[in-house]
Amino acid sequence: MAGNSFGQIFRITTFGESHGLAIGVIIDGCPSNLVLDMNFIQAELDMRKPGQSKITTQRKESDTVQILSGVFEGKTTGTPIAMIIPNEDQRSKDYSHIKDAYRPSHADYTYDAKYGHRDHRGGGRSSARETAARVAAGAIAKLLLAHNGIEIFGHVSAVGTINAPQLSLKSVSELLEIRESNIVRCADPATANEMIERIDSIRKEGDTVGGKISCIIKNCPVGLGEPVFDKLHADLGKAMLSINAVHGFDYGSGFEGSEMKGSEHNDLFIPPADGKLADNFKTVTNYSGGIQGGISNGMDITFRVAFKPVATIMQNQQSLDSSGNVSSVQGKGRHDPCVVPRAVAIVEAMAALVLADHLLRNKVIKL
Amino acid sequence: MAGNSFGQIFRITTFGESHGLAIGVIIDGCPSNLVLDMNFIQAELDMRKPGQSKITTQRKESDTVQILSGVFEGKTTGTPIAMIIPNEDQRSKDYSHIKDAYRPSHADYTYDAKYGHRDHRGGGRSSARETAARVAAGAIAKLLLAHNGIEIFGHVSAVGTINAPQLSLKSVSELLEIRESNIVRCADPATANEMIERIDSIRKEGDTVGGKISCIIKNCPVGLGEPVFDKLHADLGKAMLSINAVHGFDYGSGFEGSEMKGSEHNDLFIPPADGKLADNFKTVTNYSGGIQGGISNGMDITFRVAFKPVATIMQNQQSLDSSGNVSSVQGKGRHDPCVVPRAVAIVEAMAALVLADHLLRNKVIKL
Amino acid sequence: MAGNSFGQIFRITTFGESHGLAIGVIIDGCPSNLVLDMNFIQAELDMRKPGQSKITTQRKESDTVQILSGVFEGKTTGTPIAMIIPNEDQRSKDYSHIKDAYRPSHADYTYDAKYGHRDHRGGGRSSARETAARVAAGAIAKLLLAHNGIEIFGHVSAVGTINAPQLSLKSVSELLEIRESNIVRCADPATANEMIERIDSIRKEGDTVGGKISCIIKNCPVGLGEPVFDKLHADLGKAMLSINAVHGFDYGSGFEGSEMKGSEHNDLFIPPADGKLADNFKTVTNYSGGIQGGISNGMDITFRVAFKPVATIMQNQQSLDSSGNVSSVQGKGRHDPCVVPRAVAIVEAMAALVLADHLLRNKVIKL
Amino acid sequence: MAGNSFGQIFRITTFGESHGLAIGVIIDGCPSNLVLDMNFIQAELDMRKPGQSKITTQRKESDTVQILSGVFEGKTTGTPIAMIIPNEDQRSKDYSHIKDAYRPSHADYTYDAKYGHRDHRGGGRSSARETAARVAAGAIAKLLLAHNGIEIFGHVSAVGTINAPQLSLKSVSELLEIRESNIVRCADPATANEMIERIDSIRKEGDTVGGKISCIIKNCPVGLGEPVFDKLHADLGKAMLSINAVHGFDYGSGFEGSEMKGSEHNDLFIPPADGKLADNFKTVTNYSGGIQGGISNGMDITFRVAFKPVATIMQNQQSLDSSGNVSSVQGKGRHDPCVVPRAVAIVEAMAALVLADHLLRNKVIKL
Repeated sequence: MAGNSFGQIFRITTFGESHGLAIGVIIDGCPSNLVLDMNFIQAELDMRKPGQSKITTQRKESDTVQILSGVFEGKTTGTPIAMIIPNEDQRSKDYSHIKDAYRPSHADYTYDAKYGHRDHRGGGRSSARETAARVAAGAIAKLLLAHNGIEIFGHVSAVGTINAPQLSLKSVSELLEIRESNIVRCADPATANEMIERIDSIRKEGDTVGGKISCIIKNCPVGLGEPVFDKLHADLGKAMLSINAVHGFDYGSGFEGSEMKGSEHNDLFIPPADGKLADNFKTVTNYSGGIQGGISNGMDITFRVAFKPVATIMQNQQSLDSSGNVSSVQGKGRHDPCVVPRAVAIVEAMAALVLADHLLRNKVIKL
Repeated sequence: MAGNSFGQIFRITTFGESHGLAIGVIIDGCPSNLVLDMNFIQAELDMRKPGQSKITTQRKESDTVQILSGVFEGKTTGTPIAMIIPNEDQRSKDYSHIKDAYRPSHADYTYDAKYGHRDHRGGGRSSARETAARVAAGAIAKLLLAHNGIEIFGHVSAVGTINAPQLSLKSVSELLEIRESNIVRCADPATANEMIERIDSIRKEGDTVGGKISCIIKNCPVGLGEPVFDKLHADLGKAMLSINAVHGFDYGSGFEGSEMKGSEHNDLFIPPADGKLADNFKTVTNYSGGIQGGISNGMDITFRVAFKPVATIMQNQQSLDSSGNVSSVQGKGRHDPCVVPRAVAIVEAMAALVLADHLLRNKVIKL
Repeated sequence: MAGNSFGQIFRITTFGESHGLAIGVIIDGCPSNLVLDMNFIQAELDMRKPGQSKITTQRKESDTVQILSGVFEGKTTGTPIAMIIPNEDQRSKDYSHIKDAYRPSHADYTYDAKYGHRDHRGGGRSSARETAARVAAGAIAKLLLAHNGIEIFGHVSAVGTINAPQLSLKSVSELLEIRESNIVRCADPATANEMIERIDSIRKEGDTVGGKISCIIKNCPVGLGEPVFDKLHADLGKAMLSINAVHGFDYGSGFEGSEMKGSEHNDLFIPPADGKLADNFKTVTNYSGGIQGGISNGMDITFRVAFKPVATIMQNQQSLDSSGNVSSVQGKGRHDPCVVPRAVAIVEAMAALVLADHLLRNKVIKL
Repeated sequence: MAGNSFGQIFRITTFGESHGLAIGVIIDGCPSNLVLDMNFIQAELDMRKPGQSKITTQRKESDTVQILSGVFEGKTTGTPIAMIIPNEDQRSKDYSHIKDAYRPSHADYTYDAKYGHRDHRGGGRSSARETAARVAAGAIAKLLLAHNGIEIFGHVSAVGTINAPQLSLKSVSELLEIRESNIVRCADPATANEMIERIDSIRKEGDTVGGKISCIIKNCPVGLGEPVFDKLHADLGKAMLSINAVHGFDYGSGFEGSEMKGSEHNDLFIPPADGKLADNFKTVTNYSGGIQGGISNGMDITFRVAFKPVATIMQNQQSLDSSGNVSSVQGKGRHDPCVVPRAVAIVEAMAALVLADHLLRNKVIKL
């Protein structure tokens, strides 16, 4: 009800403020007997952590995750998995200047208006630091999906007006290798260079820029997603829109598909070769983005996520305080000029959480 | 869990197949003492019903709603409100040709793969007919919102590549008058004519075309929306993406915002006039689309919804049957060449359901 | 949230007032491919319906159930199953005398205080008529359980101070035959006669009397029930306590068990015969009532439900109206002198709903 | 779904095993601006902690609670409140003898059968240690209730066959003083002595004994509780039945009420004195236990909870291991001879959680 939980069967609840003692997450509903690879979980968090490169915030936090429960002798027991990530490099004084100021396009004003009392330090609960807990939980979801052969791959497909070309037909491990070879996490090396330069120049202006992340899910079994309200893409959409700074989501043909004609857009089935029926019915095109009627059809699931530019800029901006007095605010501290390189980990984590949940939900659907 | 419910406090559960006895909805959690204007509820359904004009399906259904419970002497009692809409003009035989065929880009294959048993007639549960139940429930949500001064207005902002200009600064009642003066439900009369011609010509080709609906919510109080996962725009996004044929959602600056710089995108506060603080803090621009940190900030809430072209076309298409045999399928019956004119009612209804739910959720947030 | 739904995966939502157009229920989450035996469903309702015998209310309602959705060609499709039961023999005028009077130990005052507006006719939503919807849904749950070999048997084990002996070790079908051979639904014929006489004499006094129902669930697989809060007996307890007039619930050794010593109460395991391990570990005694740590252990599940005497009596009682004026109220219309004979159907239905839900929940618990 | 959460609006999720790093709880949905008295929270935990007296387990754990989030400058912020209690005095070796043995009437067998993998140390998740997290959360619920004037008082009303007399008409603070003056937590000093002697003698036998706790809730406003399934007493019942070792629950007249006649049992309204209407309608008797139709009526809410004897006894018992081999098991370590003195804190905590939740739920019920 208060909105800090996500998922139905594989269900997470996150907690924690940017400058409190720790942030964390409980996973309730992870099946027992799943082997947990702690290195993998930490690696996922490292993909999101600050201070990775010159184009991310220079804040340093190791984001070391600690598992308090739900795991025994390296395997899940079916009981709640609690994970905490202590907060470390807190420079609360970086935020003293905004104690009484509402930063433009931040959540300061709305939190204050809603709750009447808020932890202003580092944005408190509205800080994107909360997403580290999602990444930790998402890592376990990914292990569950991997156990079922499902793979998720996201990359930065746009920074500002610079767009990457369509993903090449490589395996996820090949795509990962290319993506991790550059600091902006784009699967096209040439575009990556352009993006990095762009972010670097924006950073020097004390400004920020938006971007897009594209994601593909491979080997998803047919049948995931629940009509009517919990369509697979509806839950993916909510998951993505719940990430800080996300302003848009589309899947398959997306916004462009709305300009097409039905005769162009329909995905025709591929007839079985040699009269032999494949396990899944494949289609010639994939404008449906792997989902039909809200249910996965076995084709690759594809979607895009649009991020607005980070609101904290290193330039003077007019602001108001809670009494309505005009003041001016300028970003201090260490912030990201562009959020998308680090957000790839979050997009993948949220996708994994949606898929893991629907994978389990699909187990009770028929006799 | 099985995905036929929506909302937390103001919660609906829909049921019914296209060609069953009836479809319907239960609203659980509507506050008591709300006066129900039955004419208004029926008028909302009429906006969605088939057979309204030459550019919609010619199917005739009166879509007359009947309230079975939860209302006494014209006012809600706080108990569940059950509404049913009998199915009338069913030509099940129009569907006998697809009993064993999977129509391209429909949910025939995925439903069959998921459940192993389905009512194929008229698409069964996957039929957009289900959305009539949402519109009935949404009408009651709108009455609750109207009681709180909140107004919702949606219109067709694009058909294929024809786009309407930005909404003019008119009142909702003025906008409604313009919109309802044309059969495509666009708030710009000149564009409306163009859209109507386009749909009519598409229809004659036996083809279909996609489109977009833009929606604005006025007078929303500050504070609606729950961090972290149930951000107001995340719930709006899920609501929209759960509508048949929707492939994309964005709010505020949306996908275009991802191309902007922070210094352009930040919404600066308007200083209080005469040193006097307004009830709400207003902003100069509204790239945030009325929502900051997932919580409404009192500005207009704006979002867009992208619909793919209807999959049923009056042209021959290759298909497969459940055994994988190649066949051909051609739309029979009476279908919409473009779904957006009728979908305006659905978009508004889903928006109303989200707002009504968050309005109630916000009542328990502070001491 | 508003409390008209029950269950997590196999989830029902009921609606309807005593004197509205109809009552009904939606089941969301029933697996597809379950064959529905309509005669069985109606027979379950007949067990609860009024007017069956001289010791129940003489009200006549056929309680004919109609399925609106979710079933195709006699089998469930996995989509919501909506069922309605029209209200027939409504003598609303029987209730005009209580329009402004609060009947003692009824819900008139509390509903009015809570909602400020209520349908007073026949108790409105607080009428036990609502439980007919539960019985209809419970019948489908029973079919799902039967498919898995699980059997539920309830009977009247006490009327006032008349108690039946412990259930004999008969099969469920034998017990059913005995129970249905008498109108009070007690599995011990001698006690049944005594009970019937007692109820009949109470009825003649214009009074009512309480009673108890005992229930046994056979062939429940090991493993149903979720720690920590959704223990199997906790959900059974809630289910029973949600039935009108229920004031107490215990399972296994129950209240009497609290007087025992651990050395007496512990259920020792039966060693495997011939060194061969049975599928389930059986215990010598069953003070645990088939549930240990909230999880079924494969032994018979046993519980008791205590019903207070019906509040509507045919005697003059002092009452207050909503303005606090003293008045007097006397039961009119046709009421049950003792609720337990008809409530057996409700207890079994609620037990079936709990078991069906936990049966499905248990499918996602381990890899 | 996996059953580690409780409540709808004021919702808790607990985690942790007996011998893991820590146990804990997240409260999601506590309103902002509640002043947290940390001493009170710790005092509540002290009431439950082991090692308090000669009649409880001699295990020593300080059960010091640490708040990680959701509180700023001593007041709640409306964001999730995470609390952890580190596990201290773990003698895991006390449990090595049961690694492969299923203790009679414990959850060892059922957990293993359900999950296939379990942390056997100290009972793992099935340990009553989990209830410390409930008490911590319940303490915050109590603060919310106190803010609304609602008081909860539980005491040990029976140990084995020794029963305390009906509670005297004292204030809660007076009752508390009496209860805390004896180590068994009975509000009747004479009975308390008898109970203490009984437990002490049972302990010396290496045996255990069951008991009952009675609870009263004062100053509950009229209107809490939701028909139909979430009746106030149904949620209280589930809450109590979810506590380890609880085998029964009744409220108001309870099991005894089922032996009464309607004419005896009905609670007549007290006519207004001097023609002046009280805020609440009071009744002469209170067989309804403060709840009518599932909704609080403003009278004292009363209920009883029956606990079976603790299963761990210091006597030799026959057991089986997971392969079905016969072995013998004898309680080692430090265990309670009777659970009720410490369980008073748990009963009150669970009652507080139910009331806090329904207090908030009742805020959205009418216009």
